[in-house]
Amino acid sequence: MNEPTSPVRILVHGASGRMGQSLLRLAGERDDIVVVAAVARSQPAQRVIDGVPYFAGSELSAVPDFDVAIDFSLPEGFDGILSTCLQRGTALVSGTTGIEAHQRAALQAASQNIALLWAANFSLGVAVLTELVERAAAALPGWDCDIVESHHAHKLDAPSGTALALGASAEHGGATPRYASVRAGDIVGEHLVQFTALGERIELVHRASNRDIFARGALHVAARLHGRPAGLYRVRDLLG
Amino acid sequence: MNEPTSPVRILVHGASGRMGQSLLRLAGERDDIVVVAAVARSQPAQRVIDGVPYFAGSELSAVPDFDVAIDFSLPEGFDGILSTCLQRGTALVSGTTGIEAHQRAALQAASQNIALLWAANFSLGVAVLTELVERAAAALPGWDCDIVESHHAHKLDAPSGTALALGASAEHGGATPRYASVRAGDIVGEHLVQFTALGERIELVHRASNRDIFARGALHVAARLHGRPAGLYRVRDLLG
Amino acid sequence: MNEPTSPVRILVHGASGRMGQSLLRLAGERDDIVVVAAVARSQPAQRVIDGVPYFAGSELSAVPDFDVAIDFSLPEGFDGILSTCLQRGTALVSGTTGIEAHQRAALQAASQNIALLWAANFSLGVAVLTELVERAAAALPGWDCDIVESHHAHKLDAPSGTALALGASAEHGGATPRYASVRAGDIVGEHLVQFTALGERIELVHRASNRDIFARGALHVAARLHGRPAGLYRVRDLLG
Amino acid sequence: MNEPTSPVRILVHGASGRMGQSLLRLAGERDDIVVVAAVARSQPAQRVIDGVPYFAGSELSAVPDFDVAIDFSLPEGFDGILSTCLQRGTALVSGTTGIEAHQRAALQAASQNIALLWAANFSLGVAVLTELVERAAAALPGWDCDIVESHHAHKLDAPSGTALALGASAEHGGATPRYASVRAGDIVGEHLVQFTALGERIELVHRASNRDIFARGALHVAARLHGRPAGLYRVRDLLG
Repeated sequence: MNEPTSPVRILVHGASGRMGQSLLRLAGERDDIVVVAAVARSQPAQRVIDGVPYFAGSELSAVPDFDVAIDFSLPEGFDGILSTCLQRGTALVSGTTGIEAHQRAALQAASQNIALLWAANFSLGVAVLTELVERAAAALPGWDCDIVESHHAHKLDAPSGTALALGASAEHGGATPRYASVRAGDIVGEHLVQFTALGERIELVHRASNRDIFARGALHVAARLHGRPAGLYRVRDLLG
Repeated sequence: MNEPTSPVRILVHGASGRMGQSLLRLAGERDDIVVVAAVARSQPAQRVIDGVPYFAGSELSAVPDFDVAIDFSLPEGFDGILSTCLQRGTALVSGTTGIEAHQRAALQAASQNIALLWAANFSLGVAVLTELVERAAAALPGWDCDIVESHHAHKLDAPSGTALALGASAEHGGATPRYASVRAGDIVGEHLVQFTALGERIELVHRASNRDIFARGALHVAARLHGRPAGLYRVRDLLG
Repeated sequence: MNEPTSPVRILVHGASGRMGQSLLRLAGERDDIVVVAAVARSQPAQRVIDGVPYFAGSELSAVPDFDVAIDFSLPEGFDGILSTCLQRGTALVSGTTGIEAHQRAALQAASQNIALLWAANFSLGVAVLTELVERAAAALPGWDCDIVESHHAHKLDAPSGTALALGASAEHGGATPRYASVRAGDIVGEHLVQFTALGERIELVHRASNRDIFARGALHVAARLHGRPAGLYRVRDLLG
Repeated sequence: MNEPTSPVRILVHGASGRMGQSLLRLAGERDDIVVVAAVARSQPAQRVIDGVPYFAGSELSAVPDFDVAIDFSLPEGFDGILSTCLQRGTALVSGTTGIEAHQRAALQAASQNIALLWAANFSLGVAVLTELVERAAAALPGWDCDIVESHHAHKLDAPSGTALALGASAEHGGATPRYASVRAGDIVGEHLVQFTALGERIELVHRASNRDIFARGALHVAARLHGRPAGLYRVRDLLG
């Protein structure tokens, strides 16, 4: 007789940001996870919202037991959640951008002990595109490779982290991509990876039209990461 | 000490058609092949053109020794070249369109004895796209799949053979594609395979801008097919 | 000394539908309009919502004074709002789809007496595209013209009303468009009008990513239609 | 009774370049023009090719009577053909790129006396696109404007002259475009002008697939420019 599986207990770190808010809003769509606590930089006076207890960043040691932390915070908040996960032996999913080299090194080192996933983009489509790009680059030696990404006018960094990750995938397949960026309107995110030869061309495109796909993807990989052996995972390792 | 390899001896079957003419024109670009004879439905009065001896379809038994036949003829010419290759034990590359079910069955049966390749499209890019489509379909269960193909205004069949082959690849990956066709101007050939979910979309596109890629692709796979064991090959089996 | 202009008084007809709800939600963004009443097929028990009095369709004669009615209802509701506007001498903006020939004739007849606008699409971008398509068709005689439209999987009619309106514009410029449709995912609406000749091609594309643009466009033209002479207007007549 | 019109007599200046060769090859397609002489930097030993007499750049004064000069030469050859046209009172069509400010000023000054046309791009499609871009920019105040152009890997300048001309057209309509460039494979030339707002986007694209459109366009405007009053014309002034 199968015992019912307990839902995976999630800690949302960076709960006041746009992604944090989306995670809290969309977590209820899945019955295989439950949010047990939220950590916000300036935690609200009201300590419990919609049944989820809130903690300030300085109170990390006080959060209740959890299975997987999902972190969309800032580089200065990253070290705290990583060491908390290490101390408690829990998995960590992070989409915090702008982390520095020493923080990446700490992530790498921690993967000896816990299951970790850091990604620039949590959409299923981008994960698949990343894999296709590597395969195409490997099968098309000598073809020119260009990456054009478009995002809303308020995005400051260029190329996008996702474009760089796609480029790394192309390089892994043997190509040397060049980048171009467009910043306009409220474009959620579009990435074109183009391979061009004499007389023919392949265009591989991802278009995101709704930001919720990113939060849903992060919740999906968090659910999948729980119970895995220590290591550094990619979104595409947890598909299917 | 390496002996120099002899070039692969090619028979061009369907030499008076557009593809046949391109094959003869572009074969000289490669030094690993040599065209030893050409077969044209109404063979020219002048029996040798640019050093290549021409034969009529009725004279197939008289063609000199060859290693691989490349056939871009008509369905009524297909049976003759297939039986010639079987008799001589040579490989066959065919791009003849419109062949019927019994001819496909004969092709399948012949693959017990000789190396064979039939394809709707010989461009390297389409071969790679076909593989990417199958992978994407398998990784994106439940996503809608649409194929839009565009060709010049004189193309009569729709969807194109290449679109159907891409669709078969998508089906192999688990998707159920729908088709749309555009016929306009002198478009050489464009194929879009699109996977759509809620909030995101992947577009995989191939654009051909020069017909020579098809003849070059056929010459490439002919050179690669020579010496392989009997079997039915796909373009993508002979890449890289 | 300028007197402050009074806001244009809007009646929302079809208030329980998706567009009606968007109109009520977004009207507050503009201070040059005010919603004075809403008509819903099955009007809610609670007669006033967010300060707006609701009426059932059978109570049309009881609605308070208004300047412009915005109608996104059903064909069976169209006749009522048209005759109400005629009786009261007010302008009417309608986006109700599926109206029949006799209803179109009534619309045409009413334009002798009141200012009217019926459109398949109220986005500013589509209005501009419609104009560009007519100009392109007129400047490119003999070029092939194709229209490809993509919408969410739940849209039943094809081609879309917007595609047909773009096609009418192309025909007005002298082209004869052909249509193709894609139904997939949750695509809000994309229209491609393509003109193709030998050796070159023009693609004119509109992509909607957020449905709010349609309600905002309807509110915009309603504000602009107020005070105009009787006649049948197009969205593009009220731009700029 | 109509007298038959004499064909327009064309001088091809820059006859040894790629465009010059295309002009000479394609001029025969039209019976309303005739090439009466060709000027090549290093004129061939054989003074007449296919019935067309060749002259060196130093022999410009010796060319026979002509009605319109078509110039696709180099900046250092531009001054000579401009002064020759001025002396002879003939029209000039020039597509020479890289001319300097003082040469542009000379062009402007000469337009007081002869009919002149300088353009970065002679395709009909680009001429129409240029007009559409100006109209779109004027109708879409406040929308972001981006221009992405793609050309073959050997093109050195970026953005392309055509992209800059499209950008000037957008600016004339009130937009402030930003530019991105892709250099890959043997892409003949593609230009995307994109207008983006919140929730919607317009993309205006031109794709050239065959260089002959540029020579055909230059021949077309040359035939049309003949007999016009002095002035500085644009390709789009001579359409239709």
